[in-house]
Amino acid sequence: MQQVELKEKAKVDEIDLKIINFLNKDGRTPFAQIAKELGVSTGMIRQRYQRLVQEGVLQIVAITNPLLMGFATMAQIGVKADVRRLEEIADEIAQFEEVIYLVLLTGSYDLHVEVVCRDKAHLLNFLTKKLHAVEGVKEAETFMYLRIAKENYGWAGNKGTKRESV
Amino acid sequence: MQQVELKEKAKVDEIDLKIINFLNKDGRTPFAQIAKELGVSTGMIRQRYQRLVQEGVLQIVAITNPLLMGFATMAQIGVKADVRRLEEIADEIAQFEEVIYLVLLTGSYDLHVEVVCRDKAHLLNFLTKKLHAVEGVKEAETFMYLRIAKENYGWAGNKGTKRESV
Amino acid sequence: MQQVELKEKAKVDEIDLKIINFLNKDGRTPFAQIAKELGVSTGMIRQRYQRLVQEGVLQIVAITNPLLMGFATMAQIGVKADVRRLEEIADEIAQFEEVIYLVLLTGSYDLHVEVVCRDKAHLLNFLTKKLHAVEGVKEAETFMYLRIAKENYGWAGNKGTKRESV
Amino acid sequence: MQQVELKEKAKVDEIDLKIINFLNKDGRTPFAQIAKELGVSTGMIRQRYQRLVQEGVLQIVAITNPLLMGFATMAQIGVKADVRRLEEIADEIAQFEEVIYLVLLTGSYDLHVEVVCRDKAHLLNFLTKKLHAVEGVKEAETFMYLRIAKENYGWAGNKGTKRESV
Amino acid sequence: MQQVELKEKAKVDEIDLKIINFLNKDGRTPFAQIAKELGVSTGMIRQRYQRLVQEGVLQIVAITNPLLMGFATMAQIGVKADVRRLEEIADEIAQFEEVIYLVLLTGSYDLHVEVVCRDKAHLLNFLTKKLHAVEGVKEAETFMYLRIAKENYGWAGNKGTKRESV
Amino acid sequence: MQQVELKEKAKVDEIDLKIINFLNKDGRTPFAQIAKELGVSTGMIRQRYQRLVQEGVLQIVAITNPLLMGFATMAQIGVKADVRRLEEIADEIAQFEEVIYLVLLTGSYDLHVEVVCRDKAHLLNFLTKKLHAVEGVKEAETFMYLRIAKENYGWAGNKGTKRESV
Amino acid sequence: MQQVELKEKAKVDEIDLKIINFLNKDGRTPFAQIAKELGVSTGMIRQRYQRLVQEGVLQIVAITNPLLMGFATMAQIGVKADVRRLEEIADEIAQFEEVIYLVLLTGSYDLHVEVVCRDKAHLLNFLTKKLHAVEGVKEAETFMYLRIAKENYGWAGNKGTKRESV
Amino acid sequence: MQQVELKEKAKVDEIDLKIINFLNKDGRTPFAQIAKELGVSTGMIRQRYQRLVQEGVLQIVAITNPLLMGFATMAQIGVKADVRRLEEIADEIAQFEEVIYLVLLTGSYDLHVEVVCRDKAHLLNFLTKKLHAVEGVKEAETFMYLRIAKENYGWAGNKGTKRESV
Repeated sequence: MQQVELKEKAKVDEIDLKIINFLNKDGRTPFAQIAKELGVSTGMIRQRYQRLVQEGVLQIVAITNPLLMGFATMAQIGVKADVRRLEEIADEIAQFEEVIYLVLLTGSYDLHVEVVCRDKAHLLNFLTKKLHAVEGVKEAETFMYLRIAKENYGWAGNKGTKRESV
Repeated sequence: MQQVELKEKAKVDEIDLKIINFLNKDGRTPFAQIAKELGVSTGMIRQRYQRLVQEGVLQIVAITNPLLMGFATMAQIGVKADVRRLEEIADEIAQFEEVIYLVLLTGSYDLHVEVVCRDKAHLLNFLTKKLHAVEGVKEAETFMYLRIAKENYGWAGNKGTKRESV
Repeated sequence: MQQVELKEKAKVDEIDLKIINFLNKDGRTPFAQIAKELGVSTGMIRQRYQRLVQEGVLQIVAITNPLLMGFATMAQIGVKADVRRLEEIADEIAQFEEVIYLVLLTGSYDLHVEVVCRDKAHLLNFLTKKLHAVEGVKEAETFMYLRIAKENYGWAGNKGTKRESV
Repeated sequence: MQQVELKEKAKVDEIDLKIINFLNKDGRTPFAQIAKELGVSTGMIRQRYQRLVQEGVLQIVAITNPLLMGFATMAQIGVKADVRRLEEIADEIAQFEEVIYLVLLTGSYDLHVEVVCRDKAHLLNFLTKKLHAVEGVKEAETFMYLRIAKENYGWAGNKGTKRESV
Repeated sequence: MQQVELKEKAKVDEIDLKIINFLNKDGRTPFAQIAKELGVSTGMIRQRYQRLVQEGVLQIVAITNPLLMGFATMAQIGVKADVRRLEEIADEIAQFEEVIYLVLLTGSYDLHVEVVCRDKAHLLNFLTKKLHAVEGVKEAETFMYLRIAKENYGWAGNKGTKRESV
Repeated sequence: MQQVELKEKAKVDEIDLKIINFLNKDGRTPFAQIAKELGVSTGMIRQRYQRLVQEGVLQIVAITNPLLMGFATMAQIGVKADVRRLEEIADEIAQFEEVIYLVLLTGSYDLHVEVVCRDKAHLLNFLTKKLHAVEGVKEAETFMYLRIAKENYGWAGNKGTKRESV
Repeated sequence: MQQVELKEKAKVDEIDLKIINFLNKDGRTPFAQIAKELGVSTGMIRQRYQRLVQEGVLQIVAITNPLLMGFATMAQIGVKADVRRLEEIADEIAQFEEVIYLVLLTGSYDLHVEVVCRDKAHLLNFLTKKLHAVEGVKEAETFMYLRIAKENYGWAGNKGTKRESV
Repeated sequence: MQQVELKEKAKVDEIDLKIINFLNKDGRTPFAQIAKELGVSTGMIRQRYQRLVQEGVLQIVAITNPLLMGFATMAQIGVKADVRRLEEIADEIAQFEEVIYLVLLTGSYDLHVEVVCRDKAHLLNFLTKKLHAVEGVKEAETFMYLRIAKENYGWAGNKGTKRESV
């Protein structure tokens, strides 16, 4: 019987979590300001920030609002696929620029796909010419967004901040 | 018949998109560096950045990796709820710290809920003591994550960057 | 055992069908023009028209294109209801101005409802404040229109004419 | 990123809506009568009518009652199809004279098809020899009409008028 | 542990099966004729017939064709019910004269109900005023008959004889 | 447009129904006895009986109790099939001796099949070697009988008589 | 018609059941101890034990706790398969070492498979490289274990003993 | 953020696994015999056995064959329950002697219940009088066993031994 290897967890202490919370509100908050608020040195903040980023715990990224950029049709798609090629199929679908989130999961679907489209014609085109053109995609059910009630990418046990509804 | 009011779209031009792309890779990239790469003034970058943030098009935030923080159980939950109170129910569920994403949608579920838990016992506790304790939640089906194949929060028509699998 | 009464069918002959076909293309075609095309008297066309209308076989009505009037969100809704009150529930839902078509049917849903809304917020409001507020509505699944491929209200065995897609 | 083009909406004012309402009751109402009721000139009614028709907002058509013409079996059919060819499949199905309404939609079906048949044998023949003979049709679920509770083709925000039940 | 009691099976030999086959074709076949065909005495046929009837193995009954009696709408109904009262609910539904067959079963429905109605209005009335008025009936899905392909009530291992289609 | 031909209904009057009721209880009741009970001549009963049989309204047949013949496993099977060959598939399945009832219907299944088997091994063999061996059978869901609550083959508007439970 | 053969049941009396109950608690309880408790001879216990084992009524086996051996991911999988080869498919799947329980059943699935995996990556690998690689496996839905509430392998009408939750 | 506590895993080495494999075939194999086969001392086997049992990794128990004890009806039941009381409901159901296995899981059911009954009447009684009498049980779908293809309780990475089919 093969030995079990657990991925090593990063050490994240209370101060790390406080730093993450600051950056979750505004990812460009100057380290000096965070340091002042926490009563520690700027160097310490910078050091910890770099460690968290290096360990893959933390990323500071741009989040955009597709709606305000003229992309009004967001949808989730539950996909049943040829499971023998599930990982390859997932990787192919991940290439499409309309896809912003893609998960392999257990249950009545094999894949969960989240897409951003300009309008219904764009979505229809995505479904017929892109998603279903991937070999091994067998069935797909589309759920249209009515409103986003919560988005919290910088999850750290803290309360999420609601974004405006779609 | 009531007049239709379309939300005014923000103007997003090519330079804006290039700025977003830079920040999507590293949200703390100094404006001076972006300015140099694009061959424009730092002031112009700063000005555009502030306009995009003010208009709600762009946010720079921390994204964390729950797995590396000891939270190994991620799941999606499709919820059927008393639709008369759907928005209130959504807002109540959004308060739970385990919930990182929450959408109202059309189709076989009324709500899509995404959660991060430490382990199965934590998830079971979330389902029995939190989610189903919300008045008006009628049924819920849980899909467990096997692997995240794509996350692209800073969607701008560009290719997403894959994060490590769960 | 009760005697079976079949609703008497109206007699519809070949000339009636030709008249219906003319009116199906343009409901205001002058009777004189139809008469000339069919080589019969205008009086005969008028007489037959009046008989068909009186017998309920034919109606000449206005059909509008909601899309061009600023109502971009059309959907079908499959409703499960308290069947003991099914007819009353259907009649209540029929009162809503968003509803353009409503059928009681056999199968996995009890009611099929077709609605026209301005946008997703309007649809969400219709679902939460109108449809589900009707006593006896138990569950509803919404299917969003991507494109209308055929509409033929003046069905007479002839080919339908496609309207522009939604 | 491609520029979004919104289809231009037609301007429809209060008087237009009143004209539509008149024609919705009887599509052949003389313009003179409408003009008199609204206290405007017949020429103005005619002009507006022609503009609404030209812009595609309005059509005056014949609506028939299949039941009274000896076609007692109406049904809705939810179709799952090969989505790669969805638009072609929809266009093929639209050719069948039994089909009076055909929509591409999101959800558990890809196509919604509405048919009028003489009787069950006709419906069975339609399903086996026509619908399923279209290449790419994978599954279909038929819902039989029990009663039509509302039909309002001339939707303009006004209340629909109920037709006799099937 | 309670002792298992198996219902005693009746002894049915080859001659019994041959008698059943004769009666399956015409239940009024004179015993003398059967006796002659089988080369045994009429008394033996009569004796065996009476034993089979007494033991509950055999019944000779009238089978009618509802279609030819003006009852054109046959349907199967899958019912989900309050299982605590399942047997009482079954017995109540069995009282309705429209019901010709009623089974308690395992799977996605609790009860299978077969009904004969004059037309769709009769069926709609049965569903709303009778079936769903039974306390404990929770959900019901109706399947409409298109054609009966085989009926063999006198099952004895022999081939069934097809009746005319509905 | 093709003319609709309704199958002519047989005339069934009150006396016919009374005869059917007698035969429904015991299909071999002598005509003389029925005549006496109804106060008419034996010849009249015989004449009407022969007319009802000839017109296909009535059949007198043997009904057997599979349970008492050692066949303890009864089941219903919902079948999804290649609808293009639905009638041929139905006819093929109708040939199997285990099948006692077979209907083509609308809804989530295409065919409803009722079978009588000796035990679970027999049923498993029927499913794997017979039903699914028919070309065009795509999916099948089996519902096992727990109890038969009503059987009334001689339906004539009268109350059914319950048979012993399975 | 073929004669029905019932598998002969083993005779299991009260003393046998008491022996089974002892061994159900600890399968290695010395026969002498059981004999003493029941007030019979050790030889009698040994004899009965050997008979029960020989007849297949009883087995004494090791039961392990996969969780404590580093296998934290248990799941049930409902499989739809090509029923023509159902028994062969079952036998192939039974070969995989991850599979601890496998049943052919009636209902919405053809096979029920229970698996023990180290973690989600192992499960994903089992699904894609083993289960779905078996020819004839068409669809599979995975249910993840949250907690085992009861396991009673030595069923004898007695109460089961709960094992620790997963 | 709360600290994550992983249940400590027991150390199970190669020799332990070999011991488990011996006991999996016959749980009463004398330690001396295992010791001889493995070339170690009997004391070492006994010591390891006691440690494995104490740590909960291993149990030696009686497994019975319900079929040979006159209990011919085995079934799995998928239960939807009031999730707020899910653990209490599971514990109540676990008390029923018919229940041999009970799991809380994710997916379209909340609970998986496995039962052993004498016959269908016993199963029907269990469903109506026991399972559904538990407060909070909302829906249940029963899957009947056709054949058990694999049972391996002593899972240790080794191949399972098939038991006779139900």
